Amino acid sequence: MIERIKLDKESNIPLYQQLYENIRSIIEEENLDGEKLPSIRTLSKSLQVNNVTVVNAYKQLETEGYIYKVPGSGTFVRKPVYNLETSSMEEGDMELMISGIFPLLKDSIDFATVSPTPELFPIEEFKQSLIEVLDRDRGMAFLYPEITGYGPLRESISKFLIDNYSIDVNKEQILITSGGQQGLDIISKTLVTQGDTILVENPTYPGAFSAFKSRGARIVGLPLESDGINLDLLKGYVKRYNPRFIYIMPNYQSPTTISYSKEKMKELLRMAKEYDFYIIEDDFLTDLSFEGNKKLPLKTYDRNDNVIFIKSFSKIFMPGVRIGFMTIPGKLFKELIKAKHSTDISSSGYLQRAFDLYLRKDFWKSHMDTIINDYYEKYKLMKEELDHLSHFGLSYKDPKGGLSIWVELPKSWDSMNLYEECSKRKLAIVPGKVFFIDNESFDNYIRLSFSAVTKDEIKKGMNILKEILSHSKLDKIDTYMPFL
Amino acid sequence: MIERIKLDKESNIPLYQQLYENIRSIIEEENLDGEKLPSIRTLSKSLQVNNVTVVNAYKQLETEGYIYKVPGSGTFVRKPVYNLETSSMEEGDMELMISGIFPLLKDSIDFATVSPTPELFPIEEFKQSLIEVLDRDRGMAFLYPEITGYGPLRESISKFLIDNYSIDVNKEQILITSGGQQGLDIISKTLVTQGDTILVENPTYPGAFSAFKSRGARIVGLPLESDGINLDLLKGYVKRYNPRFIYIMPNYQSPTTISYSKEKMKELLRMAKEYDFYIIEDDFLTDLSFEGNKKLPLKTYDRNDNVIFIKSFSKIFMPGVRIGFMTIPGKLFKELIKAKHSTDISSSGYLQRAFDLYLRKDFWKSHMDTIINDYYEKYKLMKEELDHLSHFGLSYKDPKGGLSIWVELPKSWDSMNLYEECSKRKLAIVPGKVFFIDNESFDNYIRLSFSAVTKDEIKKGMNILKEILSHSKLDKIDTYMPFL
Repeated sequence: MIERIKLDKESNIPLYQQLYENIRSIIEEENLDGEKLPSIRTLSKSLQVNNVTVVNAYKQLETEGYIYKVPGSGTFVRKPVYNLETSSMEEGDMELMISGIFPLLKDSIDFATVSPTPELFPIEEFKQSLIEVLDRDRGMAFLYPEITGYGPLRESISKFLIDNYSIDVNKEQILITSGGQQGLDIISKTLVTQGDTILVENPTYPGAFSAFKSRGARIVGLPLESDGINLDLLKGYVKRYNPRFIYIMPNYQSPTTISYSKEKMKELLRMAKEYDFYIIEDDFLTDLSFEGNKKLPLKTYDRNDNVIFIKSFSKIFMPGVRIGFMTIPGKLFKELIKAKHSTDISSSGYLQRAFDLYLRKDFWKSHMDTIINDYYEKYKLMKEELDHLSHFGLSYKDPKGGLSIWVELPKSWDSMNLYEECSKRKLAIVPGKVFFIDNESFDNYIRLSFSAVTKDEIKKGMNILKEILSHSKLDKIDTYMPFL
Repeated sequence: MIERIKLDKESNIPLYQQLYENIRSIIEEENLDGEKLPSIRTLSKSLQVNNVTVVNAYKQLETEGYIYKVPGSGTFVRKPVYNLETSSMEEGDMELMISGIFPLLKDSIDFATVSPTPELFPIEEFKQSLIEVLDRDRGMAFLYPEITGYGPLRESISKFLIDNYSIDVNKEQILITSGGQQGLDIISKTLVTQGDTILVENPTYPGAFSAFKSRGARIVGLPLESDGINLDLLKGYVKRYNPRFIYIMPNYQSPTTISYSKEKMKELLRMAKEYDFYIIEDDFLTDLSFEGNKKLPLKTYDRNDNVIFIKSFSKIFMPGVRIGFMTIPGKLFKELIKAKHSTDISSSGYLQRAFDLYLRKDFWKSHMDTIINDYYEKYKLMKEELDHLSHFGLSYKDPKGGLSIWVELPKSWDSMNLYEECSKRKLAIVPGKVFFIDNESFDNYIRLSFSAVTKDEIKKGMNILKEILSHSKLDKIDTYMPFL
């Protein structure tokens, strides 16, 4: 590059300034990423200028981020920023989109993500707990807690379980996790080895699917009826595949929103005992009931330690706290804590202490009342609006709780077509495809969530949907014609 | 149980009280864990007492935690607490002990764990940041952050990297993790499949070993010389095994405390480029130098994106924050964020925001000065004390940084013998065995850490060690005689 540098020693512009501008243009015009610049001595010598001139030019380039120094090695050109947003979305990235890895279109109405509304977060109460822990525990708050979790928090959770769900699990059988997803990851590490068969509801939560898949599991889906999985089919599959566990969401299942009947729960537990498999119960919405009588988890009825109960507080408290827990069957104790340890040593001790105080101070109940009231209003509104679209052939089963509605489209439609039309008009929805085990096939379902939108946005979004339904052709045959 | 209940209707003791005491004794004497109690109706009928008598007795039993109700199902006996501390330590649990799963003996002097001293934690400064984030961001602070991490934190870390290590990595190439261990877990999920060969230093960090092992990797160890692994051997292994990556700790390696020479670092990078493998650089101590000139990571010299740099702040900041990061090679971007997502969705957004503020406010430098001064004093003291034991045949290579010393014992000794003698006298040390890939064999090394003890404790601990060395027989042959 030295040969390209042109300095005018007669000019009024200081030499170091000229030199700086020369090098900057060269960097901008050529692909010099990571390349080493000539040393100060070499450059000053070949340009016949003072050392200080080069030093000053380099200093300015460094300040502006064009170059950087490595002590003992020299000066290098900085690499330009790699921009995620310019990388286009490929086939198979649907899951990433849903998971929020690819951000939604800006200014779109978000019926897609099941994120709770930040306005409903109990910031003041939690702040009290956060500060109190700092004043009370000082440096201790930031040490490694026990791997199973901060003892007093496991105690409060044991109390939470008996008070809220009549679940009798003592603190030694509780493992604090960094959110519910980590529970799934730890289960996978402990119970899944290459080639194992795992039974799941179909459709199901893709995050669970990928945790099991990543361990090399073969995944077999169980279709859902209005009161849970088909138990006759389950029996057949259990005999045939001898699965280590089945993975289910007994209350407000995602995405179908169905809840298991108490009879089915009990029969399922009977089968788990008879055929000796674990049931992974993923619970993130049980508390969000819009009916008078509260639902109870499957774990409540488990007398034989067959159920591993995974609880996430992300949807009913705040996702950014990343604290959840799981129950530990005695037989798996050591294996599970070893897996937790090799996953992230332990979850943040500070947040565990603060969440413990929050639970002990009984802030919980009033928080639940607040959010249930708020979500109930949105739920009613979305149902009302959906009912106005029934003549297009849309239908749904009333979830009576949770944060979304699972809408069935006419059989001839492909949900991807509707998804694409919605995207064009800045309405984010989730096509059913994402949740089905065999997601190569067509499906005619969409999931609409009301948790991350205002009432006003619900109305606007539903209007957009109505427009699309009135004017677009959504049959599968239309789109796929070119391939016929 | 009904037949065992004896009530005295003539007594002055109220009937409900008698009934309560009867049932309590039965529960205490018999193994009724989880069993269902008779319904109130059944019991009152067969005992010929009033319903209210049974209700009151059950109420008292419930208050005292003996029984609990499940709505719609009945009343059950609570299970007694399962106590981890009563479960004895088995062979193969050494790693758990080291990891702190099995708590150290109470009142022991702790030369075992490499935990930083809580008195040195910058609580006041971090508290400022924690509160400022709450006031500034309110509910937003507790939403899911981007999967790669909170944008501004990735920016501050990019700046941290260039300022501290002359590492030029922009924010899009940084993935925030829940501590360094999670970096290893994510790497394993992305790069290790069943049967792959991974090269590691031998001895090495057992947490890495178990993360790779859990994915079914075959692990091959590379012996360490005083300036890093033997490169000739590495070359042979690379050709033979074609490993996807090698895992190393170039500065203050754990447990040997050796640091790689700059020449070896550069040669290693050359080989990584030529033979196309990744180098996982695990960095948790680079900053803790007790020499004048600061060490630089291997990543500083990496021009070809061959190094995945994993940084833990647990030892130099506070472990309970659980925030670390790793750099992402462009080619692995999607796979790594998918793995992060299925691991725990994202790390706590709140702590990420607070740590970002902490870094931006330049609290970092003065914190580092404080801890380096403090650890330097302890390091000097432990070395002095060790030097007094050299006539027993103990030797070590001066680490010149870090938080522990790797002590070589006479060749004829087995470190497990010394470990056991120390345990008896309440001195916790780590036997070398834990760190060797093939940990079935004898070894004659121990690791002594000075991070979690006071100066006074260092003196006391070294006195205990001296006593043991003066009076105990530690040769392997002695202990294993019975099996000959």
